[in-house]
Amino acid sequence: MTTVPYRFYLPEDKIPKQWYNLRADMKELPDPMLNPGTMQPVTEEELAHIFCAELAKQELDNTTRYVDIPEGILEMYKIFRPSPLIRAYNLEKVLGTPAKSYYKFEGNNTSGSHKLNSAIAQAYYAKQQGITSLTTETGAGQWGTALSEACAYYGIDLSVFMVKTSYNQKPHRKTVMETFGSKVIASPSNTTEAGRKILAEDPDNGGSLGCAISEAVEVAVSTPNCRYVLGSVLNQVLLHQSVIGLEAKTAMEMLGEYPDLVIGCAGGGSNLGGLIAPFMQDKLLGKKDTKFIAVEPASCPSLTRGKYAYDFCDTGKITPLAKMYTLGSGFKPSANHAGGLRYHGMSPVLSKLYHDGYMDAVAVEQTKVFEAATLFAKHETILPAPESSHAIRVAIDEALKCKETGEAKTILFGLTGTGYFDMTAYDSFNNGKMNDYIPTDEDLERALANLPKIG
Amino acid sequence: MTTVPYRFYLPEDKIPKQWYNLRADMKELPDPMLNPGTMQPVTEEELAHIFCAELAKQELDNTTRYVDIPEGILEMYKIFRPSPLIRAYNLEKVLGTPAKSYYKFEGNNTSGSHKLNSAIAQAYYAKQQGITSLTTETGAGQWGTALSEACAYYGIDLSVFMVKTSYNQKPHRKTVMETFGSKVIASPSNTTEAGRKILAEDPDNGGSLGCAISEAVEVAVSTPNCRYVLGSVLNQVLLHQSVIGLEAKTAMEMLGEYPDLVIGCAGGGSNLGGLIAPFMQDKLLGKKDTKFIAVEPASCPSLTRGKYAYDFCDTGKITPLAKMYTLGSGFKPSANHAGGLRYHGMSPVLSKLYHDGYMDAVAVEQTKVFEAATLFAKHETILPAPESSHAIRVAIDEALKCKETGEAKTILFGLTGTGYFDMTAYDSFNNGKMNDYIPTDEDLERALANLPKIG
Repeated sequence: MTTVPYRFYLPEDKIPKQWYNLRADMKELPDPMLNPGTMQPVTEEELAHIFCAELAKQELDNTTRYVDIPEGILEMYKIFRPSPLIRAYNLEKVLGTPAKSYYKFEGNNTSGSHKLNSAIAQAYYAKQQGITSLTTETGAGQWGTALSEACAYYGIDLSVFMVKTSYNQKPHRKTVMETFGSKVIASPSNTTEAGRKILAEDPDNGGSLGCAISEAVEVAVSTPNCRYVLGSVLNQVLLHQSVIGLEAKTAMEMLGEYPDLVIGCAGGGSNLGGLIAPFMQDKLLGKKDTKFIAVEPASCPSLTRGKYAYDFCDTGKITPLAKMYTLGSGFKPSANHAGGLRYHGMSPVLSKLYHDGYMDAVAVEQTKVFEAATLFAKHETILPAPESSHAIRVAIDEALKCKETGEAKTILFGLTGTGYFDMTAYDSFNNGKMNDYIPTDEDLERALANLPKIG
Repeated sequence: MTTVPYRFYLPEDKIPKQWYNLRADMKELPDPMLNPGTMQPVTEEELAHIFCAELAKQELDNTTRYVDIPEGILEMYKIFRPSPLIRAYNLEKVLGTPAKSYYKFEGNNTSGSHKLNSAIAQAYYAKQQGITSLTTETGAGQWGTALSEACAYYGIDLSVFMVKTSYNQKPHRKTVMETFGSKVIASPSNTTEAGRKILAEDPDNGGSLGCAISEAVEVAVSTPNCRYVLGSVLNQVLLHQSVIGLEAKTAMEMLGEYPDLVIGCAGGGSNLGGLIAPFMQDKLLGKKDTKFIAVEPASCPSLTRGKYAYDFCDTGKITPLAKMYTLGSGFKPSANHAGGLRYHGMSPVLSKLYHDGYMDAVAVEQTKVFEAATLFAKHETILPAPESSHAIRVAIDEALKCKETGEAKTILFGLTGTGYFDMTAYDSFNNGKMNDYIPTDEDLERALANLPKIG
């Protein structure tokens, strides 16, 4: 018999009623987003043309430490939250490690990932404001699926610009979004100025998140009563996703645990930023010396090989500029790259923390990631998303290090979602057809050559 | 604020530690399975050539009311159980019904369905007995996936004979099973006598569950230290699946509820038999007068249009015979039929209860099923499996009847799984390409013409 249960769900009275805004505790704040026209810090009013008003406010609010979660969102969260904190007993056993491993499993809702936490919040605020349609982009499709579910619930029309390579590789993702009533457009498309421009230069362009963002923003700002929403990178998204870390921290406290090590996959940073938030608070306040590891794909290594600089958030260069680790807004990961985590930049908050030494980062190759995914699936009976499996890879590596040193570290990692829509990638791995791709230094120099010249 | 929560998880001390054997409370037992050679009731010893010893015992045990769940299985159940009992607040609201609707959601594990409840039990007993390999069949793939997960965990080799039409339509299902380490063979195959015989008669035969069973049983009985396992129909499977109903009943009691109506989809009967078990006990003992509805596809209507007779469980006619509602062991649902629920027969226990008037049955057409699935997905944020959506269809119909009559009935239905691997079917529905298929009376007469002549 086990003393700590496999799956631990917070009791109802312990469920967070506020989000936590990590910026309120940072010693130094990230540099502000800039208006691409004026090169001055964007104002809430300017942002409110793109985002819903409340979300524009959250984006720029660096001081409010705790933000009340509206009752309407709490009600929706109850449909799929709390998510379980799972002790990886089976994985520990097969690894023979003295380390204790916990994972926060966010794939336990039908969107299949943590993205629903912010999707519901953003759709809720849009509904409150009387917005009738939203636009967004999606890469692997997790965000698009989550937002489709949220918009179906609130009765908001949604257009999703889906990265074309992914659109073609994952027709089932498109079908899910359509089932929830969304319109899905392969990006770059000829429905926008930004898309037509990219296609004119390169008719075979397979798209990128940066490109899809350009298209989605263009439609949002040119359509009455429409706004744009984004599933990662932004401060507001990290705020909503803090629910992951808050639940995890309370659950661990109830189990008498505190992590020595917190590990998460990092694309734009939404899951990682949410998971680490309350633990990072303890570190920033000098209460704990937890180690944080961001895990990114070797094929899209913004933290480990990118540059900390102002860059556009999109390829069409119509969005505000953010100071972040970036590979250049024109960077496209190899078509060979499976799953998400394909954004050229990284959350400005996480970029700043990494730059200031509060967090580590490692890049891993995808065959190693799928090895870890398969081992995990067989022993934990959860088929992980490729994205999440980046965190699993490093969690396993760290547990194996403990086996060597004999240390009984407590590891917490984020299991952001399930891999049901990634079977083509699993199939290629199972049949030995999966390759690794690492951009050369020349590839990266080329992509970074066009960074905007700021300050 | 809601008084009954959206999702209710049983506290740890209320989790069932025993399965419930409905046969122990039946006024009249189902007729016994017959040995196809002797036409005499099969003995435990005979069954033990096909099944693991403990499972053969459970199959024939009509008297033990409660069976202790072994500690090893309880430990594995903890990984994904208890499953939530969900109050369908959102669905109730959109239907505008006074009825209260609850569903027991069994898709909250990565196999995506309730099948894992019995897969773990069967793999556990095999492991205890020192069995090194198992064979089985799968139609839509839910059972094959669940058993693959269980066998990966226990380190048992697994060969899955997958109905060929499904194998071709759902390559991703195959990949999931392979990811868990299973071998997947399209059935009918040329790897068995039974498969070769069927292919000789009809080279384009798309297969059926009955045919895949013949192949799997043949391999099991001719391979040393190998046994056959089945995911539905059998008494042992209904025993394991009683955990669904036991959890649901305890949860409802804790919420101060008792269902007036229990609805489940029915293919071989595993989910329905498990869900209704403890409620049916109350009816058999005269304590309650709950109504039970089995929902089957109009394209494979064993209860509503089949014959209550002895029939083979497989197409190759090598398995024991069971007295059940059957469409004939050669029956194949139209290729047009999406999802599972495609077995020619029905659990002997459920067949007997239906025959004796304890349960009702309705057959529904698949476009109506997908209409219900889509409405449910949009409002409950869960993408249901086509199988489960049969129950949703009738639960919605019953809730709408309550709207007409003003009755505030309490409805409980089984949501057996998620539809992630059924996007081709959803796509065909979304695009208006889904057809209904109902076998003609002539079709059924033809399939029933070859029933074995018994007594």
